[in-house]
Amino acid sequence: MKEVRIGMVGYKFMGKAHSHAYRDLPMFFPDQPRPVMKMICGRNKENVEKAAEQFGWEESSTDWQELIDNPEIDVIDINAPSNAHKEIALAAAAAGKHIFCEKPLALTLEDSREILQAAEEAGVKHMIGFNYRFAPAVLLAKKLIDEGRLGDIYHFRAGFLQDWLVDKDFPLTWRLQKEIAGSGSHGDLGAHLIDMAHFLVGDISEVIGMSETFVKERYVPENMTGLSGSASRDSPKEKVTVDDATLFMARFESGVLGSFEATRYAAGHRCTNTFEINGSKGSVKFDFERMNELQVYFQDDAEDVQGFRRVLATDPAHAYADAWWPPGHTIGYEHTFIHEVVELMQAFKEDRQPTSNFTDGVKCQQVLEAVDMSIAERRWIKPDDL
Amino acid sequence: MKEVRIGMVGYKFMGKAHSHAYRDLPMFFPDQPRPVMKMICGRNKENVEKAAEQFGWEESSTDWQELIDNPEIDVIDINAPSNAHKEIALAAAAAGKHIFCEKPLALTLEDSREILQAAEEAGVKHMIGFNYRFAPAVLLAKKLIDEGRLGDIYHFRAGFLQDWLVDKDFPLTWRLQKEIAGSGSHGDLGAHLIDMAHFLVGDISEVIGMSETFVKERYVPENMTGLSGSASRDSPKEKVTVDDATLFMARFESGVLGSFEATRYAAGHRCTNTFEINGSKGSVKFDFERMNELQVYFQDDAEDVQGFRRVLATDPAHAYADAWWPPGHTIGYEHTFIHEVVELMQAFKEDRQPTSNFTDGVKCQQVLEAVDMSIAERRWIKPDDL
Amino acid sequence: MKEVRIGMVGYKFMGKAHSHAYRDLPMFFPDQPRPVMKMICGRNKENVEKAAEQFGWEESSTDWQELIDNPEIDVIDINAPSNAHKEIALAAAAAGKHIFCEKPLALTLEDSREILQAAEEAGVKHMIGFNYRFAPAVLLAKKLIDEGRLGDIYHFRAGFLQDWLVDKDFPLTWRLQKEIAGSGSHGDLGAHLIDMAHFLVGDISEVIGMSETFVKERYVPENMTGLSGSASRDSPKEKVTVDDATLFMARFESGVLGSFEATRYAAGHRCTNTFEINGSKGSVKFDFERMNELQVYFQDDAEDVQGFRRVLATDPAHAYADAWWPPGHTIGYEHTFIHEVVELMQAFKEDRQPTSNFTDGVKCQQVLEAVDMSIAERRWIKPDDL
Amino acid sequence: MKEVRIGMVGYKFMGKAHSHAYRDLPMFFPDQPRPVMKMICGRNKENVEKAAEQFGWEESSTDWQELIDNPEIDVIDINAPSNAHKEIALAAAAAGKHIFCEKPLALTLEDSREILQAAEEAGVKHMIGFNYRFAPAVLLAKKLIDEGRLGDIYHFRAGFLQDWLVDKDFPLTWRLQKEIAGSGSHGDLGAHLIDMAHFLVGDISEVIGMSETFVKERYVPENMTGLSGSASRDSPKEKVTVDDATLFMARFESGVLGSFEATRYAAGHRCTNTFEINGSKGSVKFDFERMNELQVYFQDDAEDVQGFRRVLATDPAHAYADAWWPPGHTIGYEHTFIHEVVELMQAFKEDRQPTSNFTDGVKCQQVLEAVDMSIAERRWIKPDDL
Repeated sequence: MKEVRIGMVGYKFMGKAHSHAYRDLPMFFPDQPRPVMKMICGRNKENVEKAAEQFGWEESSTDWQELIDNPEIDVIDINAPSNAHKEIALAAAAAGKHIFCEKPLALTLEDSREILQAAEEAGVKHMIGFNYRFAPAVLLAKKLIDEGRLGDIYHFRAGFLQDWLVDKDFPLTWRLQKEIAGSGSHGDLGAHLIDMAHFLVGDISEVIGMSETFVKERYVPENMTGLSGSASRDSPKEKVTVDDATLFMARFESGVLGSFEATRYAAGHRCTNTFEINGSKGSVKFDFERMNELQVYFQDDAEDVQGFRRVLATDPAHAYADAWWPPGHTIGYEHTFIHEVVELMQAFKEDRQPTSNFTDGVKCQQVLEAVDMSIAERRWIKPDDL
Repeated sequence: MKEVRIGMVGYKFMGKAHSHAYRDLPMFFPDQPRPVMKMICGRNKENVEKAAEQFGWEESSTDWQELIDNPEIDVIDINAPSNAHKEIALAAAAAGKHIFCEKPLALTLEDSREILQAAEEAGVKHMIGFNYRFAPAVLLAKKLIDEGRLGDIYHFRAGFLQDWLVDKDFPLTWRLQKEIAGSGSHGDLGAHLIDMAHFLVGDISEVIGMSETFVKERYVPENMTGLSGSASRDSPKEKVTVDDATLFMARFESGVLGSFEATRYAAGHRCTNTFEINGSKGSVKFDFERMNELQVYFQDDAEDVQGFRRVLATDPAHAYADAWWPPGHTIGYEHTFIHEVVELMQAFKEDRQPTSNFTDGVKCQQVLEAVDMSIAERRWIKPDDL
Repeated sequence: MKEVRIGMVGYKFMGKAHSHAYRDLPMFFPDQPRPVMKMICGRNKENVEKAAEQFGWEESSTDWQELIDNPEIDVIDINAPSNAHKEIALAAAAAGKHIFCEKPLALTLEDSREILQAAEEAGVKHMIGFNYRFAPAVLLAKKLIDEGRLGDIYHFRAGFLQDWLVDKDFPLTWRLQKEIAGSGSHGDLGAHLIDMAHFLVGDISEVIGMSETFVKERYVPENMTGLSGSASRDSPKEKVTVDDATLFMARFESGVLGSFEATRYAAGHRCTNTFEINGSKGSVKFDFERMNELQVYFQDDAEDVQGFRRVLATDPAHAYADAWWPPGHTIGYEHTFIHEVVELMQAFKEDRQPTSNFTDGVKCQQVLEAVDMSIAERRWIKPDDL
Repeated sequence: MKEVRIGMVGYKFMGKAHSHAYRDLPMFFPDQPRPVMKMICGRNKENVEKAAEQFGWEESSTDWQELIDNPEIDVIDINAPSNAHKEIALAAAAAGKHIFCEKPLALTLEDSREILQAAEEAGVKHMIGFNYRFAPAVLLAKKLIDEGRLGDIYHFRAGFLQDWLVDKDFPLTWRLQKEIAGSGSHGDLGAHLIDMAHFLVGDISEVIGMSETFVKERYVPENMTGLSGSASRDSPKEKVTVDDATLFMARFESGVLGSFEATRYAAGHRCTNTFEINGSKGSVKFDFERMNELQVYFQDDAEDVQGFRRVLATDPAHAYADAWWPPGHTIGYEHTFIHEVVELMQAFKEDRQPTSNFTDGVKCQQVLEAVDMSIAERRWIKPDDL
């Protein structure tokens, strides 16, 4: 398989990130199958045509069914709003298309399971967009754990802190409306933390959470563009229907203690996606705002020189680094998507499921819902019971 | 009141820290009443005599009742093992002595309340040793909050991370035995976080926790000195009866969401006593390993230069800084005790209760026990219900 | 002018960086003229054809004269080895082509001036590749200075620290040979610092330097690829003919004191390209290894909260940030080249010279040679005297 | 020798720091000879009596000759203004007293040599107050170098950056007057850097410097206290006669390249006393504002986890740490003086010269003057030629 032909639904934030990944991949990873940017789909004809032109897609469409029906398309890449994932994914699977779906897989665990099952029955490849797995510094953490260099793991603590809602006048955009977004900080940010936990530390056996909507009502926006929008003070106010912040504690099957926090109210944190892992032989710390770095500590360093090392994951020894620039020359957010698509291409090359895939998506959704239930019922919940 | 005459019980870690505080105070705070180091008490005659000589106490004793009976002593400073606090404190109160007691006030909430009541009925001054309140950087955080410069508070997250138990061969010292220490990481480290939360953010309305003892059995030490000890591999192993790590979530009466973590298993963290507070106008971050610094963020900084500032709390504008060295010349751990004793002296000068006092001690104990109960019963507990 | 057609000479490190910039530009800056990747040129037919395919060039050639002669090419982009810049640039100017030349402009000041003169006489646009100017955090520093927010400038200190020569067995690659590379750390790294100084602080009136070649002889490599190579211990050793490290002090025309250091022997520094500027109203600090950040200090912050702020230059208020991702989502090394090419396109749009251009290249070369002379003659040298 | 009896001249900043060191030493280093605080001397009777009382000296005097004549005094500790050092030191030596002199030894190299010679001829112990040597993190750097763990040293770069003169209205205190202070930033701050260089890297073979007085005239203060003072805008202005900033480059006898910078105009730097050393096997970085930390890098760490480690020099493996608190509990500025005095006491115990002693003081003065000469004559100067 020399080429993999893509049809993509959605052209906003994630659509742009994915498009760029496809565009850059052949230049930096020439040994991988080449993604062919066949067709992009969106509801607004003018906009999607413009996007096709700007991003480099061969064709555009306003009907995603056209992508499904197109025999020249191998993969359906779903960047549509979350509430549209299910329908498209099921149709894609039914048509025998491989599927690359942005997170969340669906709005509910039940729907997620249905999608996974459909993909498995169709025998297609399926991938879910947990892009943070693909930062080289994160992959270094994974490697250190897998090689036993951190020993037995005791603690996992993670936070995804943003601050765009600290402004009480920020309007009621779609991300603050449950029926469209599905969830607030928990599903948007917490989902990434949960996947990271699964990736690095393993399965979660029980959870208990708490959440809050600090600002209960916000102005209805007069217009929305992408993630943002604007409202005047004359706009009416309506209820915010998603969580502003959700915290939870978890016990992992391995006995690890976990703590998780997602919030959009942490002034000064633009995008602090962070985790720390403590083991019997060492620790690692990561903060996405310095995504090229991993802080690493080893218990068996000489007694007088023990301390967290700031490792810049840009050396030849680090994942994907060979494709980029000399040591010390950093990469950015968009590179996580390029690496993600490299993984997808490599899965085609090696004819296997990519990681992360729908199984991971379902597992993540299971924990998300277990947390929700634990909040509603004010008790510990086992994700496996859902 | 020009002088305050002290009788102190205990001469180990805390005894040394308190002694040094009394010793240094008159030199750096000459306008405060002078603490007179009257008598030090300990069980071992030779050791306590040596300590008296080394630390600068006028006399020593092996019987704390002697301190209580001594009419030339104004304050009883209790640094004895936690399980001895109650008896000494009650006797001191009965004798009309002022009391300065290291944390914890007692091993149980019930005992703590009894001590507080005794002190109140005796009409004496009472102080509890929450020394971290007295780091200038912490006091800066307090000031910013009190002046409204952080706005409404949304989040409080705190951790006290140490790593001295990561070594599985560390022996079963007294701090790992419930009958002596009362508690493990929760009472030892978590107590400081809880007091910090009370000090900075206010009262806690409900909590839920989890805890773990990662290494269940450890070698019985052949000898113990201070906080440490040694054991050979031929020593028998016995059960660890305290928690290695305890986490909990909290909701404050003001609506703030809190998360707390105390552990002795965080490799690479020697003494990371840290908190972060996010408000509607700004945020602060503190880490005791860099105790002279407070990270401060303001939402209303000019748009192009927003970011956390590293404030070195050594300027004339910072608490206690005038007594020390020029800006940029840092102070250390022991200074928190000096400031604490300054507060005690000032309370005498102004004839008021010092802060923090036994009321704070009881309140802290209440949350500690609420967390314990929430762990045992696997449900949310309101401290006020205890 | 809707399109600008490029012919590029060279396809190694810089060739790749420039190609990617042309490739990405239309996607993220759709309002700029679109660079058309017409023809790429290199000496090895097979390699250049492969590069053309991989990078996305329409055609390839092994003879740069072909590019000069091609009427469908507007700009000659010169990434050839430094010792070939002059011949190509002069030919391009003679043919009326616009020129985008990687630094250094030429191996000597005399040659640089000849190239500048040729370009000016030809009336073409000319640009030189000082890409670090285009990091948003650097542009924020520039803005703060230009708006007077740092006040009068007193100090400029800069270092470009790398560590790839710390390994004594690293072979004698072309960059260690004066006849090919022209210079060592001074011309390679110091040149960037000098341009940064010119950009941010202004002209330099006098300099004095020192330099050293720590490891005098190295193994002749058996093969070289890009910047690297390999040699066995059986290889003969030959003399290193460039400087390993060069330091110099400078006085700026404005009275600012400057210090500069370039080295390839700073173990632990992969690519620490750093500067700090102190003024009467504030300071800024930059380190390329954390290229999205600028440390900013203001003298007139409230007394109790003064401190360096870590500004993440990814907000809408920062240069080029609108084209990329939401606040807190960082960009990487390659983006400096994309912004550089945006500047080139904008210069076409507005029909003006881009910044930085050959005038800057000559000025940089002047200081480089003044430093060299100051080292040889062990005295202060005024660049303007050269 | 169980006790060492001290007579001290001066009671301001340094007098306070030394007094505290004597006061604390017996408590934390009980195995050292005990310094007895015999007599303190100052010109103002009331103030010196108050200082004696506050700091804990047995007696006071307004005539330093009294200290020299007192047979019960073993050591003369000189904290008087720099221009009085010589006379007192010579008298002390003549009387056979041991001498502990604050830096600078004297105002000129000639005077310094005379003092050293007098001390040597008198056969007394002599120490000079380069206190920064005694930070545990600095001693760790020294240890790593001495044990060869950094390999051959290539670079030493150091800066002492303060910002108290950035305010143009700061008055013309004594430290800005050459006849009293002897020198400005160079002698005050640069001297510490030079001693650090000697201590860590060895002798300097040649230097060239530059300096500047940015603000030429300042208001004459209406009153001065310690290091500070105040002036109204009605005060007359007079000329600043010392340097505001001095930079120099150095070549060490070992071939190391050095760069040095001292300034009082680095906004945001309260007391950044920093150095970095790069060797063939590793590097270290130190910043006094985080004086408990040393950044350490080793070239032979595993390829995927190379990076600067933040070592907190508070472990049992670190110098002096055993005397203080558990790991992670930091110490402050004043502790450098306590350790310094420990060194003095240990020199008595072992009957040897302390380090650093007057030989170091002379060597430092030699480099200071060589730099001054290099500035005046605008050429490289060899300190050994002076």
